[in-house]
Amino acid sequence: MTSASVWNSRGLRLRRVRDRLHEERLDGLLVSHLPDVRWLSCFSGSAGLLLVEPGSATLITDFRYRSQAAEETGEEIAVVIAESNLFEGLSRCLEEGGPGPRIGFDEQALSVGDRRALGEACGGVMWEPAGAIVPSLRSVKDPGEIESIERAVGVAEAALASVLDIVSEGITEADVAAELVYRLRKGGSESLPFEPIVASGERSALPHASPGQRRLGERDLLLLDFGAIVDGYCSDMTRTFVLGAAAPWQREVHATVHEAVDRAVEALEASVPTRDVDRASRDVIEAAGFGERFGHGTGHGLGLEVHEIPRLNARSRETLEAGNVVTIEPGVYLPGRGGVRLEEVVLVEEGGCRVLSAFPLSLQEL
Amino acid sequence: MTSASVWNSRGLRLRRVRDRLHEERLDGLLVSHLPDVRWLSCFSGSAGLLLVEPGSATLITDFRYRSQAAEETGEEIAVVIAESNLFEGLSRCLEEGGPGPRIGFDEQALSVGDRRALGEACGGVMWEPAGAIVPSLRSVKDPGEIESIERAVGVAEAALASVLDIVSEGITEADVAAELVYRLRKGGSESLPFEPIVASGERSALPHASPGQRRLGERDLLLLDFGAIVDGYCSDMTRTFVLGAAAPWQREVHATVHEAVDRAVEALEASVPTRDVDRASRDVIEAAGFGERFGHGTGHGLGLEVHEIPRLNARSRETLEAGNVVTIEPGVYLPGRGGVRLEEVVLVEEGGCRVLSAFPLSLQEL
Repeated sequence: MTSASVWNSRGLRLRRVRDRLHEERLDGLLVSHLPDVRWLSCFSGSAGLLLVEPGSATLITDFRYRSQAAEETGEEIAVVIAESNLFEGLSRCLEEGGPGPRIGFDEQALSVGDRRALGEACGGVMWEPAGAIVPSLRSVKDPGEIESIERAVGVAEAALASVLDIVSEGITEADVAAELVYRLRKGGSESLPFEPIVASGERSALPHASPGQRRLGERDLLLLDFGAIVDGYCSDMTRTFVLGAAAPWQREVHATVHEAVDRAVEALEASVPTRDVDRASRDVIEAAGFGERFGHGTGHGLGLEVHEIPRLNARSRETLEAGNVVTIEPGVYLPGRGGVRLEEVVLVEEGGCRVLSAFPLSLQEL
Repeated sequence: MTSASVWNSRGLRLRRVRDRLHEERLDGLLVSHLPDVRWLSCFSGSAGLLLVEPGSATLITDFRYRSQAAEETGEEIAVVIAESNLFEGLSRCLEEGGPGPRIGFDEQALSVGDRRALGEACGGVMWEPAGAIVPSLRSVKDPGEIESIERAVGVAEAALASVLDIVSEGITEADVAAELVYRLRKGGSESLPFEPIVASGERSALPHASPGQRRLGERDLLLLDFGAIVDGYCSDMTRTFVLGAAAPWQREVHATVHEAVDRAVEALEASVPTRDVDRASRDVIEAAGFGERFGHGTGHGLGLEVHEIPRLNARSRETLEAGNVVTIEPGVYLPGRGGVRLEEVVLVEEGGCRVLSAFPLSLQEL
């Protein structure tokens, strides 16, 4: 993405927030969730608030980010360096001719304590819970964002292909993770969206296992769930392998999960309720008799964060939109034996979808 | 640390929380900050609430952690698997004969939205902001915790020593970071406490620079700030090097920061106000004429999190206690030229302190 297109999208994004402020009759929006701040301002530091007003936008950050904030945000966003804490900096923006009295905030992105500090520091304002305005706008990706996610998918797939060359009996899960992380970073991943899951043998039945000192053995299942970050955008992929020849039960579980992925991907298109996609994969797993062994949702949105809206699970009440990028990741976990999870990254389109991942889903015997 | 000692410390920690509940006239405490949950229950998953009552403790988590929660928590803590969300699971604990009506929560560890959801799901309870009861107890480390931090310091120092062998002109910051992370993980770091900072040349003047594609050149400053995690406990260290022969200004800045570390360490002992330690390092930097170039605090507590209380800065109003483990990390940042930061990990004791890090602070020319 050229820097000109970043600039265009930043202007467009701020305009869309302002449209929402107008609809909600708000005089401003306090953006405190850092991925939201980054999406609107390009600022990638670890401490920042963005105040969006009808005619201006101001980033409040601290000393550590003085140079970085000026470089990243460009001239349409003013930068204020807070002296003690960010709310003190914010109060100065408001005193210096801020917007009218009703300013929205995202109630999921502010702690009870910070909400109190905000009221104390900036007393003249009516702070209004405004829902997830920015996360909701962020859930529809533009072409530049999709390109970044595709690159993050590519980095993850290349790292996986490379690490499989060194996976063999006797290596520990922790060492597989170290080798995988090395290849992710050397391949261009800026950091990691989450700590990789490397789970072997019966530990693959723990959906969120941390890599441990267990050594891989013959006929073990090996589950790898990990991602890369490119331009701040995440990928997230899962594949499950077998060391040596797969046992019939391993083949059966893998085939079931594979089919569950396929059915969910077939169901994915704009205007479909998210829970229907979950239903599509869950039906396959229930029909195979593993319904009790698939206790999590089918997937989630992906972007600057690894877990975003929309959520694809049995209780979600959202509807897919063209431009959503979501994961599809059903799994079956048999306690004491092992588990299989497979995960694709998919772009929702009108009338269908496009799978952004290319690494084969079919069972590979290492 | 043997598992027997983990068990002992868990019982002791719950008892100390219950003593605080008694003092505060609370009937229970809802612990929602995950490091606090882990400290009390040993549960290391990514979704959990712990309800501490006078006669019991209950961990509420989700399907993904059923086996792990049972393994990690042991029998003194009951485990409830939530069906839809954690507050739903919590409401079942309360209905099933929970404590009296006043239950405390940490207002920094609950979002405004979650506070509302909590009230809706568990309406019969009087939820009371209770301050940072667990973080405050956690700030005093026991011998097992200190041993884990020392091991994390050792892993970080060994990784740094090893990575210096491959640092030379022409390598990118991102590749130095990839090599460093590889050595941290292979050396036993379970994950990373934070994304390593690798900043070279004039970029070392950005206190929180992300490693980029800049290639190291002759006479560059090279700042590395990173840590390891062992048994869940973090280390955090910073060293600044020069590639080739250091220029006089680089020597001067480095010597100033080195002296600032030494003065702060000399000031560290139980019963000393945290701001006096900050003052000790700041005095050195101000006397050298760089006062405006040191805009952050001198250090912070370290444990299951990389930033904990106590905070050592000009505005902090805490007093050091024996058993606090803190970093000392003054820095001087000259925009457009470069910066130097040095960081030690120090255990506060009665009448003095013990530096847990051993890697030399003196300026090393690579």
